[in-house]
Amino acid sequence: MTTVVDTEFPAPAGVRSGAFGNATHLICRACGATSPLGPFYACMECFGPLEVGYAYPTVTRAQIEAGPKSIWRYQPLLPVPADIATFRSTDPGFTRLVDARQLADELGLKQLWVKDDSGNPTHSFKDRVVAVALSAARELGLQVLACPSTGNLANAVAAAAARAGIRSVVFIPSDLEPQKITASAIYDTTLIAIEGNYDDVNKLASEIAGEEEGWAFVNVNVRPYYAEGSKTLAFEIAEQLGWRLPDQIVVPVASGSQLTKIDKGIGELIKLGLVEDKPVKIFGAQATGCSPVAQAYRAGHDVVAPVKPSTIAKSLAIGNPADGPYVLDAVRRTGGVVADVGDDVVVDNIRRLARTEGIFAETAGGVTIGVTAKLIADGVLDPAAETVVINSGEGLKTLDAVSGLVGPRVTLPPHYDAFTDFWTTNA
Amino acid sequence: MTTVVDTEFPAPAGVRSGAFGNATHLICRACGATSPLGPFYACMECFGPLEVGYAYPTVTRAQIEAGPKSIWRYQPLLPVPADIATFRSTDPGFTRLVDARQLADELGLKQLWVKDDSGNPTHSFKDRVVAVALSAARELGLQVLACPSTGNLANAVAAAAARAGIRSVVFIPSDLEPQKITASAIYDTTLIAIEGNYDDVNKLASEIAGEEEGWAFVNVNVRPYYAEGSKTLAFEIAEQLGWRLPDQIVVPVASGSQLTKIDKGIGELIKLGLVEDKPVKIFGAQATGCSPVAQAYRAGHDVVAPVKPSTIAKSLAIGNPADGPYVLDAVRRTGGVVADVGDDVVVDNIRRLARTEGIFAETAGGVTIGVTAKLIADGVLDPAAETVVINSGEGLKTLDAVSGLVGPRVTLPPHYDAFTDFWTTNA
Repeated sequence: MTTVVDTEFPAPAGVRSGAFGNATHLICRACGATSPLGPFYACMECFGPLEVGYAYPTVTRAQIEAGPKSIWRYQPLLPVPADIATFRSTDPGFTRLVDARQLADELGLKQLWVKDDSGNPTHSFKDRVVAVALSAARELGLQVLACPSTGNLANAVAAAAARAGIRSVVFIPSDLEPQKITASAIYDTTLIAIEGNYDDVNKLASEIAGEEEGWAFVNVNVRPYYAEGSKTLAFEIAEQLGWRLPDQIVVPVASGSQLTKIDKGIGELIKLGLVEDKPVKIFGAQATGCSPVAQAYRAGHDVVAPVKPSTIAKSLAIGNPADGPYVLDAVRRTGGVVADVGDDVVVDNIRRLARTEGIFAETAGGVTIGVTAKLIADGVLDPAAETVVINSGEGLKTLDAVSGLVGPRVTLPPHYDAFTDFWTTNA
Repeated sequence: MTTVVDTEFPAPAGVRSGAFGNATHLICRACGATSPLGPFYACMECFGPLEVGYAYPTVTRAQIEAGPKSIWRYQPLLPVPADIATFRSTDPGFTRLVDARQLADELGLKQLWVKDDSGNPTHSFKDRVVAVALSAARELGLQVLACPSTGNLANAVAAAAARAGIRSVVFIPSDLEPQKITASAIYDTTLIAIEGNYDDVNKLASEIAGEEEGWAFVNVNVRPYYAEGSKTLAFEIAEQLGWRLPDQIVVPVASGSQLTKIDKGIGELIKLGLVEDKPVKIFGAQATGCSPVAQAYRAGHDVVAPVKPSTIAKSLAIGNPADGPYVLDAVRRTGGVVADVGDDVVVDNIRRLARTEGIFAETAGGVTIGVTAKLIADGVLDPAAETVVINSGEGLKTLDAVSGLVGPRVTLPPHYDAFTDFWTTNA
């Protein structure tokens, strides 16, 4: 077991000792400057994005395995206190890692696993990141949990705040579909509809985050903590494989944070001796209608030019992804790529995953399976290598993407004879 | 550890030894006559309903805890083979048991747990029963998994069959809402729409089950196996409480099978010495618009007069519940009751569970929480006794029940000033 000790920082003012577990400071991903833990997200030196740094103690597999059946079993590797499991949260994580043999056979892969995050409390991977953001908000004394969102994030914030008994405010575009409004409003969140598009909503949220006291915008001013939640995907995959790493992982890319934190999580597992060191190629998946990172990858660029999204994969439709450059770095460093598929392919692959594995994914899952299939066909993914794909959300949330395409095989009168006539030719 | 040895029966013809684990025979719940294991559901003596009988070996807690994190950890107590986990299924179960303190405080209960079955693969408790039915179908050499259904059961059958790589046929009324059709059709099941209501569909399904070879109608000819899956709710609750029983359980009643099998599961845990013997009161919950069992309970009857359902709780809308008399027996024997609440109360309690615990339940969950609240108000449930309520399904499947009732608090132009004006008076 390795002990990694970073520079020492004092606990933030007004915050209890151990509030952030083994996390000790924030560090700028651009210039490397460090700052104390707090509700900060931009480097005071260069305005670069901050992430959480740790002084890791010894962590053993047995210690983790004795923990709760949720992301809190990885508490020593997250910016949350040792008593985190005693607080009310939705306790996300420890979702199924599905041995996808039928899908693997169809794609010509030797061994494929689907990490199915539709099993989380509000049925997307956002429950992981929001749970960590909620802990940071509580420890920092912030009273309102908030976000701009059109879907999964809104559900996760509203549910987590309800469970924790704190106030939440969710900002949405006023023309959002009624079903999506219901799935967040049900948690009695303060839902504020903004006359404008998602960019307008986002801009307003950032302004509020900058001006108001006591607000935790999960993906703005507590973003460094929030983002750490995605590491638990890597931790769970490794533990569920029997404490070892796969050869290849295909990850959907919206802001890019999920991919970069999976990469970070793998690095931590290796550094702490929890798994054997081995190369893991990381691949990013986007929808063609919002593929700024895939375009930058193909062009050989290190930075990402913003695009205007137009895709049915709305949970991935971030035109100016904050982690874009770090995604490019991670995939190039590990030997992966970032690729994209069109909306038709997305729909086909939602259907393919349901047909072969009985898993109904939202559009983002169709993107990830679609890109996996494309990369195999193109000879980029190694079909003999053990592969994991992430399904980040639930098909019941994006029914419109497939309704009209699937339906009854036949409509019959309610008589046995009518059935036998049909079945004789369709058995 | 107790060993319970029932009468010995030969293995059914053409079925491998151990195909049904420790199950040894079928037994009539009406007259007690026994018959061999097979695709039988009605007693050959009296036409009464059959259930599965076992010759239990010694089963230890450690043995169960070493098993997979799904219902298959209880394999020794189910009619499935010892190698069940090696077959492709959706691996349901081991859903969250949520410590519902905020809801308990609001209801005036000392300790309340919500067993949240929306965390199952297709987000309802039906995944449990269908997984056991699928195993029986496979072991009996049946080639088609089928059901009549309008919702949760259709989703579960279609997904389980897709995952297992066998054919499924789902019969639905032709006027079913498009979203419900999509959520089953996505799994590439053979969906057959019938011109008629659910009763017509059901009648046709029973006729096909009686006439055709090779079909496993999960809730008809393999029903005895299917029903055993609900025992896993009792097993998980006990294990998640640290191998002990609660004082009171509130269970939704549709056919009544879930309640009677939870009662059976509790009895088995006690008989096998896996938990300490203690009385557990079992309460049944129905929607007033389909409350034949509650009506029979109040009238002091032992049999249930059929009703014509009219309620938003469609997953509980069975007007002629097969297990009705056995529900009456179980609640009376344990000291519980069967009660009902109207659709308005159902909706209020969907909202209450979401607001207090961050759990979005389908209408059946609103029924169960609503009945729990009513029984506390009426002094029937003991507020000082440890209580478990079952949430059997997911709110995303019954959005219509609450849409229009919840929504944005306010609609604002995209300007910070507009926000501060609102927030000043609403903070």
